[in-house]
Amino acid sequence: MPDSTDLLSLTHLHTALDLAERAIGLSDPNPRVGCVLTAPDGRVIGQGHTQAAGGPHAEVMALRDAAQHGEPTAGSTAWVTLEPCSHHGRTPPCCDALIAAGCARGVALMRDPNPLVAGQGLARLRAAGLTVLALDEAPDDEARALLARAHDLNIGFFARMTRGRPWLRLKLASSMDGRSALPDGQSQWITGPEARHDGHGWRRRASALVTGIGTVLADDPTFTVRGWPCERPPLRVVLDRHLRTPPTHRIAQIGKADPATPGTQVYAHAATLADSAGRERQMRLEQQGVSVLAWPGTQAHDPASAARLDDLAESWSELGWNEVHIEAGSRLAGAFWQAGLIDEVLHYLAPSYLGPGQPVLNLPDLPALPALPLAWRVAQALPLGQDTLLRLRRV
Amino acid sequence: MPDSTDLLSLTHLHTALDLAERAIGLSDPNPRVGCVLTAPDGRVIGQGHTQAAGGPHAEVMALRDAAQHGEPTAGSTAWVTLEPCSHHGRTPPCCDALIAAGCARGVALMRDPNPLVAGQGLARLRAAGLTVLALDEAPDDEARALLARAHDLNIGFFARMTRGRPWLRLKLASSMDGRSALPDGQSQWITGPEARHDGHGWRRRASALVTGIGTVLADDPTFTVRGWPCERPPLRVVLDRHLRTPPTHRIAQIGKADPATPGTQVYAHAATLADSAGRERQMRLEQQGVSVLAWPGTQAHDPASAARLDDLAESWSELGWNEVHIEAGSRLAGAFWQAGLIDEVLHYLAPSYLGPGQPVLNLPDLPALPALPLAWRVAQALPLGQDTLLRLRRV
Ligand SMILES: NC(=O)c1ccc[n+]([C@@H]2O[C@H](COP(=O)([O-])OP(=O)(O)OC[C@H]3O[C@@H](n4cnc5c(N)ncnc54)[C@H](OP(=O)(O)O)[C@@H]3O)[C@@H](O)[C@H]2O)c1
Ligand SMILES: NC(=O)c1ccc[n+]([C@@H]2O[C@H](COP(=O)([O-])OP(=O)(O)OC[C@H]3O[C@@H](n4cnc5c(N)ncnc54)[C@H](OP(=O)(O)O)[C@@H]3O)[C@@H](O)[C@H]2O)c1
Repeated sequence: MPDSTDLLSLTHLHTALDLAERAIGLSDPNPRVGCVLTAPDGRVIGQGHTQAAGGPHAEVMALRDAAQHGEPTAGSTAWVTLEPCSHHGRTPPCCDALIAAGCARGVALMRDPNPLVAGQGLARLRAAGLTVLALDEAPDDEARALLARAHDLNIGFFARMTRGRPWLRLKLASSMDGRSALPDGQSQWITGPEARHDGHGWRRRASALVTGIGTVLADDPTFTVRGWPCERPPLRVVLDRHLRTPPTHRIAQIGKADPATPGTQVYAHAATLADSAGRERQMRLEQQGVSVLAWPGTQAHDPASAARLDDLAESWSELGWNEVHIEAGSRLAGAFWQAGLIDEVLHYLAPSYLGPGQPVLNLPDLPALPALPLAWRVAQALPLGQDTLLRLRRV
Repeated sequence: MPDSTDLLSLTHLHTALDLAERAIGLSDPNPRVGCVLTAPDGRVIGQGHTQAAGGPHAEVMALRDAAQHGEPTAGSTAWVTLEPCSHHGRTPPCCDALIAAGCARGVALMRDPNPLVAGQGLARLRAAGLTVLALDEAPDDEARALLARAHDLNIGFFARMTRGRPWLRLKLASSMDGRSALPDGQSQWITGPEARHDGHGWRRRASALVTGIGTVLADDPTFTVRGWPCERPPLRVVLDRHLRTPPTHRIAQIGKADPATPGTQVYAHAATLADSAGRERQMRLEQQGVSVLAWPGTQAHDPASAARLDDLAESWSELGWNEVHIEAGSRLAGAFWQAGLIDEVLHYLAPSYLGPGQPVLNLPDLPALPALPLAWRVAQALPLGQDTLLRLRRV
């Protein structure tokens, strides 16, 4: 029977985290969770990860896996990357499933960071007589590295749960002198194939890909995920206050071409949708399978008010979007930046200098240099073929 | 007695390279060379590195070291980072010193890359009966790493010897959007103390620090090496075609303040020095210890011709400058870049976005994006406190 030292062994939690990563591109809006079940003698008897929304969670998948192999689960230990849920959602609570299966112990890598639910799952297991341990209560260095990975894996889910706004990740690609296009708009390709492939890996993590009407008109992009497995591709979203998205452009057609793919969502100003020309354009887009949405927020019905990006971001939380991937031109990217809504920047830098051209972010004049220490830090510097990714996060 | 396997052991060459690095900031214009002497039984009996110009070279230093410790050098092996010189310069050839000391073997990490002299030093040793090996003839992976270090250590010397132009290294510091200053000129400090310290380490390697009159007028810099040991600080050079350098500015005063420090060199257009107002300014600068030089080159005496940066760079080779460190504003830095004279870029990036402001390089409009693959590659990505150094080299 494992003693407390065994309970602290991290091998199964490493495996559980590997399993959890398989839920990327699959489980949204649910968190990516992995579960390993071990028998009293320490053997692994079941493994699982969160399935598509409405499907079973990691714990249930692991219990089923054990059952399929004829392994009894009584007395087993469940190693999970996130505290098991204790509430009835689209599926019954995972805590109940573990209790019903006769598990003797539960080890969670981290508790639910949402203060409203944190600890309830573990308390429920404890009340049912299980020995329970949460690794984030007293982590050592190895555990801290695991915890950081676990936190990053569900960073959008946690952001949404704790602050009511998804994790907003801005992708930029530029030369070393910060140019994303030449003055005439030429921009394909500043960065090379390895950087683009990496960018698609980040797209794949997101619940939605957001762009601006400027990019749609200039590049006619598809905003698909290429080169990575992705069962649940992110929604495509265009911010287009005056509803200028051409119904013939690829991003408008995409829902029609493939019925399994949800149509693009286009956000227009409520005032645009209030006049007859706007309604006409809306109808033509909807015929292609596009969803036209009025910009949310309290002031959205006042045609004089600016469409607020923070209202929009908060509404995305209600839609269950965890990570939002923004790939826009300098105007929209600059607007998100100025609004203070960006949580992370993926800046792909090509080793070239372009001189005059479009800036990577369109920003107003600064009256003074930002004070040191800066509000941002480099979380990662990654060589990608000719290019380099600098990934920035707020300090 | 060491057999050929011992000859190929790299330990002593590692040590010799460490010794050679001590010649940084000391030996210019001579190459940075290290030498280890081992007795027939394998013991290290002497070590040395190149001294200041006119002083002894590495081999002679190592022989003296052995003599001082009463170690006989007959039958010894000399491990050197660069093929010993065979010509009479300010000092007698090192080959002769090794032969006279009775060395039995010579192992050179690399041959002199100057095709006009390469191999002559080794041939002379061989002719005197020494067993001779040059590691760059058939390097394995470990040797290749050592060779790369050896090559970088004297990259300016080799550039000067093989192509008649120093190694030109451009230092840039900017925000992620390529701004080196706000529109009003504010630029201190975009990058943090760790990046600045690293920048001084690169300054220290150079024979000369070059800046533009724009930077002198805007910042009144001293262009000293701070925070690093440096016996032979690099010369200060201002490119100032109309001789606007104020005699009261620190860069003009520096030679006067410290008699051990050579005065700043200011390059003016020949036409400027030809008129009486120019000559008057020249005299006032020279009174402070500044050397005023006419821009070199065939066309320099035609007042209508542009002062050519390539003529200038070639003239620096004749002055014995190996590495030239350029720290200028966007105008002069952009001019060097456009002239295709830059060999390496040290780009320090701060994790901030500044919006409108001075570009890091002032460049003309590009008609098309550069073709892939690019002409530049990232040789190093180095975190430095808040900042990141991307070091670029030509492919
Ligand atoms: N290098 C890269 O990473 C990258 C990525 C994407 C695009 N690009 C390039 O960027 C260029 C397009 O740049 P762009 O600036 O025109 O396009 P954009 O930023 O994608 O779109 C700008 C448009 O978005 C709309 N928008 C909606 N809400 C906004 C808000 N709150 N603030 C500001 N704008 C809002 C505005 O049009 P309305 O006022 O009509 O709504 C605005 O004109 C293309 O050349 C493209 O290739 C580069
Ligand atoms: N972030 C950084 O890494 C960094 C480094 C240094 C400076 N700076 C900033 O840069 C700003 C100054 O910028 P700047 O562009 O005015 O200064 P600059 O590039 O240092 O000097 C420009 C001047 O150099 C002279 N020059 C001589 N030969 C030239 C040639 N072949 N081509 C072009 N110019 C030549 C020109 O004046 P003449 O025609 O009179 O000869 C020109 O106006 C300051 O704010 C400073 O703080 C930033």
